[in-house]
Parts: sequence; C-alpha cells; structure tokens
Amino acid sequence: MAQPTICPKFEKAISLLSQRWTALVVYQLLLGTQRFSEIQSAIGISGKVLSDRLKDLERQEIVKREVIPDTPVIIEYSLTEKGRSMEPILRTIENWSQDWFQSESEV
Amino acid sequence: MAQPTICPKFEKAISLLSQRWTALVVYQLLLGTQRFSEIQSAIGISGKVLSDRLKDLERQEIVKREVIPDTPVIIEYSLTEKGRSMEPILRTIENWSQDWFQSESEV
Repeated sequence: MAQPTICPKFEKAISLLSQRWTALVVYQLLLGTQRFSEIQSAIGISGKVLSDRLKDLERQEIVKREVIPDTPVIIEYSLTEKGRSMEPILRTIENWSQDWFQSESEV
Repeated sequence: MAQPTICPKFEKAISLLSQRWTALVVYQLLLGTQRFSEIQSAIGISGKVLSDRLKDLERQEIVKREVIPDTPVIIEYSLTEKGRSMEPILRTIENWSQDWFQSESEV
C-alpha cells in the first residue's frame, strides 16, 4: 500500500481533538479560569475521567493548573496560549452544529 | 450533579468529529470524488475499517456513494452538501496544526 499522503501535523491535531472530552473541556475553559467542580458539572463527566483528561491536557500544554494556597487549597484550571489558539476551531464547530444538527426537541 | 450546560448540538458535532477516521475521510474527499482505493491509500486505513466508516458517513448524510455501471462496476464516493459544509472546520484545524505541531523531522 502506498504511503499515506495526509499531512502528519494535521493527523496529530485530529488525533488530539478526537480524544473523548478534550474538545468539551477546552470549550468550557474558553469561558475563563475554572475549578475542577465547575468543569465537571458543566460537561457532566466523572471525576476520575476529568482528572485524567486534565493531566493529559497539561502534558500537551493546552491547559495549565494553578494551586492557590488557601484552606482548603484551591486548584484552578485555565487555557495556555496553545489552548486559547483552539478557539477558532471550536467556534467553527459550534456554528456548523447550529446549522446542521437538530436539538432533541425538534426531532 | 447539575445538568450539563454544554449545548447538545455542539456535543453531537464533537461526537461525530471524534470518531476515528471521520475527519480524515472528509478531509480527503474535499479534494473531490474518489474511489475506495484512492481514499484508502491516501489515509492508510484497512479496507474493512474504511468500509464501515464510509457506511456510517453515508447514514449521517455526509458522504454519498455512487455506483457507475461498468465492467467491473465503479464505485465513487463524494461529499454531500452537509459534508462540504465541514470544510471550514477542517481548514481551521489544518491552520492550527501548522502553527502548533512540529513535523517528525523538526522534533
């Protein structure tokens, strides 16, 4: 079989975006810095899964985690520059979804 | 736990795009009508998986399949209007990947 001709950078970006929850977490953080529980309740995800996903997004330098010394300690999550640079992607998906998907009540 | 606040239409679009190979198949078909073997060699995917993915994309009205009576019969795939409307999403991802990912040789 011939070598694939699709650009490897594009494939990497698609692979990142295809990970379950990644796009939803980034989309939620476009609203601004949030605590774990805020992200969790906004997207309806288990704590364990969200924790894994945030660690992964930190490793990929898309999300940054800040520990604020308080009692109890406060942990906040926000987007890095790389994370914020995903906004045009998510907005384009948002517009497309409005044009092409029906909400449950319209079905 | 509170009800998730993320728009269900956006979630549906993300879920569709998160399916492995979907974005790559649509991206490839932006080049125009293609035969099964052309798509397969461009993205480096097994025949069985591509066949399943194309059927799924037909069900979602993103890809259309045309049978051209010839000997042997020719089967061509192209994007529907809904499929072509995904172009801005894929172009935005393409631009982002160029800015934020290194190719193997640069690592």
